[in-house]
Amino acid sequence: MSNSSYAALVASFTRLYRYQHLAAMVGWDQAAMMPTKGNEARGAAMAELQVLMHRTLTDPTLKTLLKEAETEATDNATRASLREMKRVWQQANLLPERLVEASSLAGSRCEHGWRTQRAANDWTGFLQNFRPVVECAREKAQRLAEASGLAPYDALLEQFEPGMHSTQLTHIFGEVKSWLPGLIREVMDKQAGEVTLSPDGPFPVAAQRALGLEIMGLLGFDFDAGRLDISLHPFCGGVAEDVRITTRYREDDFMQSMMGIVHETGHACYEQHLPRDLVHLPVGQARSMGIHESQSLAFEMQLGRSPAFLELITPLVKKHLGDQVALDSANLARLYSRVKPGLIRVDADELTYPAHIILRFEIEAALIAGEIEAEDIPALWDEKMQVALGLDTRGNYRDGCLQDIHWTDGSFGYFPSYTLGAMYAAQYFATLRRDTPELETHIRTGNLAPVTGWLDSHIWRQGSLLETPALILQASGEALNPAYLRAHLEQRYLADSQ
Amino acid sequence: MSNSSYAALVASFTRLYRYQHLAAMVGWDQAAMMPTKGNEARGAAMAELQVLMHRTLTDPTLKTLLKEAETEATDNATRASLREMKRVWQQANLLPERLVEASSLAGSRCEHGWRTQRAANDWTGFLQNFRPVVECAREKAQRLAEASGLAPYDALLEQFEPGMHSTQLTHIFGEVKSWLPGLIREVMDKQAGEVTLSPDGPFPVAAQRALGLEIMGLLGFDFDAGRLDISLHPFCGGVAEDVRITTRYREDDFMQSMMGIVHETGHACYEQHLPRDLVHLPVGQARSMGIHESQSLAFEMQLGRSPAFLELITPLVKKHLGDQVALDSANLARLYSRVKPGLIRVDADELTYPAHIILRFEIEAALIAGEIEAEDIPALWDEKMQVALGLDTRGNYRDGCLQDIHWTDGSFGYFPSYTLGAMYAAQYFATLRRDTPELETHIRTGNLAPVTGWLDSHIWRQGSLLETPALILQASGEALNPAYLRAHLEQRYLADSQ
Repeated sequence: MSNSSYAALVASFTRLYRYQHLAAMVGWDQAAMMPTKGNEARGAAMAELQVLMHRTLTDPTLKTLLKEAETEATDNATRASLREMKRVWQQANLLPERLVEASSLAGSRCEHGWRTQRAANDWTGFLQNFRPVVECAREKAQRLAEASGLAPYDALLEQFEPGMHSTQLTHIFGEVKSWLPGLIREVMDKQAGEVTLSPDGPFPVAAQRALGLEIMGLLGFDFDAGRLDISLHPFCGGVAEDVRITTRYREDDFMQSMMGIVHETGHACYEQHLPRDLVHLPVGQARSMGIHESQSLAFEMQLGRSPAFLELITPLVKKHLGDQVALDSANLARLYSRVKPGLIRVDADELTYPAHIILRFEIEAALIAGEIEAEDIPALWDEKMQVALGLDTRGNYRDGCLQDIHWTDGSFGYFPSYTLGAMYAAQYFATLRRDTPELETHIRTGNLAPVTGWLDSHIWRQGSLLETPALILQASGEALNPAYLRAHLEQRYLADSQ
Repeated sequence: MSNSSYAALVASFTRLYRYQHLAAMVGWDQAAMMPTKGNEARGAAMAELQVLMHRTLTDPTLKTLLKEAETEATDNATRASLREMKRVWQQANLLPERLVEASSLAGSRCEHGWRTQRAANDWTGFLQNFRPVVECAREKAQRLAEASGLAPYDALLEQFEPGMHSTQLTHIFGEVKSWLPGLIREVMDKQAGEVTLSPDGPFPVAAQRALGLEIMGLLGFDFDAGRLDISLHPFCGGVAEDVRITTRYREDDFMQSMMGIVHETGHACYEQHLPRDLVHLPVGQARSMGIHESQSLAFEMQLGRSPAFLELITPLVKKHLGDQVALDSANLARLYSRVKPGLIRVDADELTYPAHIILRFEIEAALIAGEIEAEDIPALWDEKMQVALGLDTRGNYRDGCLQDIHWTDGSFGYFPSYTLGAMYAAQYFATLRRDTPELETHIRTGNLAPVTGWLDSHIWRQGSLLETPALILQASGEALNPAYLRAHLEQRYLADSQ
């Protein structure tokens, strides 16, 4: 009986996985390939698919099957699988189909409009599409909160980082706010006397792409199971069997794109190494968005911006972009660790990045709680940006609150994942460094196996078999400890050896 | 009551259209973008979607709704809409879900394997994947035949060219076989003394693509509602709101790709001009594959290879590919009307093309009728190719029966559409020429509006409001008349002015 209940669940969740495959692919296409006039039909098709996935999860037989299978599960793997099925099932069953469809349509419309509104600095136009997105998100948060006993914002957070609540985040981020501004100042003072050379472009897109592909290969990306393309907002999409990463190129600056590719490749390698025999079930999928970001940031921040890695790839950089002194590895390392407060999150350096996240966390938490309205965002953004990084964004929506894609489709609760990811990544590398003598030498000489092997065995192939705290404990021997991020930043940005 | 029954049908068929959108997009992606290892998951997702579309159409309420709506429909447009809904509904309801899923999976596997097996000339490997495809197709034909009273092959034909049967095709094609070999010989004799210059490559892919895009623009392709990409087998996919055409480039020969793009643009313009307010319903979609091919062939054969059009685009050709005498329009016209029997259908000239189609029609009709088995195809192919074009294909599967994609996914009954399309296209242009003084002058001077305007009003915006015979009658004043194709060929290939 247990077998057949569980088997029936597996059949339903496998079907769901196939629908998710379709959603992931047309979603990638929408961002990377689709021409403008295709958007309305695409939005309708995607909303229809959302409704279908929602229906699959709200089929009343699932409730009985889950109960039966839970009583009769004997092994840990099945229990973990059921736990993750139930998490997905619960989220869906708390939301009415009407809301799911309305959210998808509102998100699709808002995101599509944003693509041109951002460039046009058109906050008023955006606001019109954004209000329904906020409304849907609040209703969703309310419904999820009522059932779970969580606060509304925490109920949204739960979708991206299960088990993480805003009290813990406020505590962690509050701590960061206590030392970050001081550290930024100290580093900027130290770097004031440093000489860096600016690479002299233009760097043709084709050459940047070729360089990016070569670095992806070095990092272990499987090109028979994925692609690199272009989109306005870089992301990692697709499915585990076929991972699609994107970047955007500027011919006057290759550095953002190159390191962006390293970042997305971190996401991609996680997906490509999820346990293949379980990937069609929730338990075989990525643990959370925080853990996902910990992979991209392990690649980008811990590995990618390290002097050893930059030394390794410098010959490739010069091969594709031409030889010039500014492309020497020591200069690249200085450029990639240069700290300068700026308006744009995705362009931010490692050190000021958490300030961007904390600002967004505070605003979105207030928005979902109903403490502010959508129209209050720009003023609050200006105020917080002034305090955090001393920057003025008044009237500059494009480089202010219109810069990110996340809110356009209602992904409130996602942003904290970035800084949680940075913390996890720092914690992994502290462990990895402790356990691997001469890690830097391995990296410098092109042996990345100690890094990817560690991530593979401790994170990638774990899928969602463990919950986040247990996963981190098993990987590093202790619970999430933000002190590792601070130590990493102090080491990289203040130690004399750098 | 009628209103509400019809409205309920519209809702169901709109949902179906959205599922078709997903299928079209992931299908295009599979051919144009997907990396190899993505195929298994893609195949599973596509099969799941096929099952879903089938379920949508086999929902038992549709039967009642169709009956109610039919009794109460008062206007012609609604009656036409119901006629087309019923056609789609009937096709689906005669097939069990198991067969729909098995066909999709077998087709996906066979097509994917074919991509490498063709290159490797691996008939034996192909045969293994192909046998289940044939089995599914035969069962499908049998089931559709039993219900409709048609012969099994005719029941498949009905999917691509409703109303066309193999007796009529055998008659039409038999007639073509009576004059085609003689005409081919006569033209080859006439061309034997002709001097043509071979364009001297290489022609970089980027330049060919830029040329192709410019010609698409000239032909009226809307780039905000479609794209041009690369695939192994060129096709027109996507949806009416977002049409995706593909080509393949050879740097030593731009001619195939350039005219291939003109061909696919014909398909694309049809899709882009379907009646937008009806395109989510069967009545607003393309009439048939024969009519679809008549659009691509109107563009490629009637317009594209005409001396007037080649004169118009010669400056573009020279702009992108460089100036050389071989690119003069008179030489291009000679090259594009050069007749030379060859092994490959897609590379065939206009005159020998019907021979390729008739051969495939005869083989697939015999295969579905059970007169031959899959393993008999190569020998029969050799024999017929010898008779039709005097060519030996023994042991050369790659350029023989493995050359086309159509059979790999079980699309038996499609091939006749090409030659029917050529006949319709010749008939349109005979009408168009009769009604438009100085048509050639318009074309030569870049005014393509008489052509596209005629196609738009007579074919494109008609969708499926009329059945094929009525559509052709309304457009040209008479029923399908193959004599126009013969006259066109004799005029183009034998008249002295050419």
